[in-house]
Amino acid sequence: MSAAPDLKPNDQPVLRAQPEAGIVRLTLNRPKAYNSLSVGMMTALQAELDAIKAARDSVKVVIIAASGPGFCAGHDLKEVRANPGRQQYEALFRQCSMLMQSVVALPQPVIAQVHGVASAAGCQLVASCDLAVAADTARFATPGVNIGLFCSTPMVALSRNVSRKHAMEMLLTGDLLPAARAAEIGLVNRVVPEAGLADAALALAIQIAAKSPLTVKIGKEAFYRQVDMPLAQAYDYASRVMTENMLARDAEEGIDAFIEKRDPKWEGR
Amino acid sequence: MSAAPDLKPNDQPVLRAQPEAGIVRLTLNRPKAYNSLSVGMMTALQAELDAIKAARDSVKVVIIAASGPGFCAGHDLKEVRANPGRQQYEALFRQCSMLMQSVVALPQPVIAQVHGVASAAGCQLVASCDLAVAADTARFATPGVNIGLFCSTPMVALSRNVSRKHAMEMLLTGDLLPAARAAEIGLVNRVVPEAGLADAALALAIQIAAKSPLTVKIGKEAFYRQVDMPLAQAYDYASRVMTENMLARDAEEGIDAFIEKRDPKWEGR
Amino acid sequence: MSAAPDLKPNDQPVLRAQPEAGIVRLTLNRPKAYNSLSVGMMTALQAELDAIKAARDSVKVVIIAASGPGFCAGHDLKEVRANPGRQQYEALFRQCSMLMQSVVALPQPVIAQVHGVASAAGCQLVASCDLAVAADTARFATPGVNIGLFCSTPMVALSRNVSRKHAMEMLLTGDLLPAARAAEIGLVNRVVPEAGLADAALALAIQIAAKSPLTVKIGKEAFYRQVDMPLAQAYDYASRVMTENMLARDAEEGIDAFIEKRDPKWEGR
Repeated sequence: MSAAPDLKPNDQPVLRAQPEAGIVRLTLNRPKAYNSLSVGMMTALQAELDAIKAARDSVKVVIIAASGPGFCAGHDLKEVRANPGRQQYEALFRQCSMLMQSVVALPQPVIAQVHGVASAAGCQLVASCDLAVAADTARFATPGVNIGLFCSTPMVALSRNVSRKHAMEMLLTGDLLPAARAAEIGLVNRVVPEAGLADAALALAIQIAAKSPLTVKIGKEAFYRQVDMPLAQAYDYASRVMTENMLARDAEEGIDAFIEKRDPKWEGR
Repeated sequence: MSAAPDLKPNDQPVLRAQPEAGIVRLTLNRPKAYNSLSVGMMTALQAELDAIKAARDSVKVVIIAASGPGFCAGHDLKEVRANPGRQQYEALFRQCSMLMQSVVALPQPVIAQVHGVASAAGCQLVASCDLAVAADTARFATPGVNIGLFCSTPMVALSRNVSRKHAMEMLLTGDLLPAARAAEIGLVNRVVPEAGLADAALALAIQIAAKSPLTVKIGKEAFYRQVDMPLAQAYDYASRVMTENMLARDAEEGIDAFIEKRDPKWEGR
Repeated sequence: MSAAPDLKPNDQPVLRAQPEAGIVRLTLNRPKAYNSLSVGMMTALQAELDAIKAARDSVKVVIIAASGPGFCAGHDLKEVRANPGRQQYEALFRQCSMLMQSVVALPQPVIAQVHGVASAAGCQLVASCDLAVAADTARFATPGVNIGLFCSTPMVALSRNVSRKHAMEMLLTGDLLPAARAAEIGLVNRVVPEAGLADAALALAIQIAAKSPLTVKIGKEAFYRQVDMPLAQAYDYASRVMTENMLARDAEEGIDAFIEKRDPKWEGR
């Protein structure tokens, strides 16, 4: 949540950068508004994700980072209050929920690179990413309860990352969690010194970008589909996925390279 | 489980106290029976929870504490064995399961304040609460397996708090877990020195009681409803909840107070 | 995964041993192939599990251990590549998925005793066991992504043991996790010095073997059935299970022994 001065969105609310081949780093760029998710910001981020989905052959991994003092303060509360009404609110939460689900549904892995505060829908964005690397100074909260607006959509993502009592504590108290605690409860994967944050996220992205993109795509999609299934159904489904994966050229190549103790050459098919 | 002397339930098996406005502390009060959940105790606790549910305007947070050497030893085994038979057992477990679900369904957050041993249905009660604060000397177990009666109803709550291998270890060994370990696996939120237990639980309750009760009610209910849904359904549901929450007076007031940097005044609507 | 020399399966690909009455230790015994799960190995392991299921009166707990430098390297990749084709792959993953589900469905608890590396389907086997004890030198990975074959069936078991971000990190990076980290995220229960591994697993097995086998069977089955149910349904089901359990002779005996402060004598009914 942010009540920062009502900034005009600048020309590039989301900055797209490609520091390494195959890796796109999306940087939330409304620093004075703590990168709050205004409609403009969400629209821009959605457009980037849609473009990345379409560019599957060239983009292998996505990093979501942020500029300024914090990662993301959630919805833009001034904008929200300036556009009251049931229809407006429905549209807002529909857009945000679609955005978060687009992160999950993206074929490429998405890594959150978190510094400063990630709160409310900003914390939800971290939880929605496949992986998260945090600066040791980062902090996490779902503080909607403090302003009369429970973080009900953020909790969808949060409660699928951390256990119930941990989620309930964040949601009911609104307290800021230090990065180390966020790692303990499973909200982020790794905590690194703030100065090394961007490098750590990039190193993780580079590691994953070296894998077969086809294989990663198959696996990420299967992960989220099977996770809610009963066991027998999950195995039936995952066995079919494994068979299709085995029939792909990249699996033949990867296994042969492993047996022959050489590096594989991925063809993406 | 308890095999303590067959005490007559005293006149107040559950002591109701209100140390702070809006906070009810329910104290299990059969100390010589380790607060085992006799039919009388469960009936009294159910009645209190029902009354608290009805008193939503005045009661904001509930603490469940206990008197004597331990928190709760589970079912009253002497009473159970004195009333054998399928119908009796069915009635017993139905009553207990309804009680535990009443904790989850209560509009107000419920905090377990745990000292000594919480075992079997006593451990289930802790797991069923939204939050739990434990003394550093507290211990937790599901020891039914030791007496031929697997903790099958306690495991419903336990396995929704901790991961599978952790739950299985407790259920199959019956071992007592120290408080620190219970915190590690997610069964309790916080561990504090025993002397400060009541204060720590109360401080957490006071913190939550300062929020809008309407908002907390909306959020708690939504949490448990969405947590078992597939992702898309959970987002559809939570988005509707957010919209209704936004249309409430308390959200308007809370957001305005946040923007205006003042304390909100909750109206509960 | 293993690309070790194509060994002929020896006469006893799975060694069955009974160091204590009621405890069967199954030792994966293709050490030069890192105990990879060839069709022969899976068939032998399935046969042992089926026999153990039928021998419910004499076998109370199962330990799955391994000989040689590592626990299990997953599928036998040379064998897999030597038998290409959709039908062959389907049969392979069907057999493996049935094997893993047989561990879960076995009436007796199964303890993984892990040393060296447990990777891919080997890591899945650990995740599929009810409990796991690991040497402090053990390591865990789902490295299929490195060879173009995402660990999609292993992730069914993995993602039911550890939280999403932890599972995703293992699956997307393929990195080896040290035992201590595996314990932190919930993949294994206990980490012990390597020299004491077999004793630690056996001690845990002995502890559980002293319980009523009927009670353990009731509880293990109920655990996995209720864990995917919505709360109310889980309580209805578990309450029925508790009632049946109460009506068993072992529960009467166990409760009486507890009240009378003596050791129970289980009759298994």
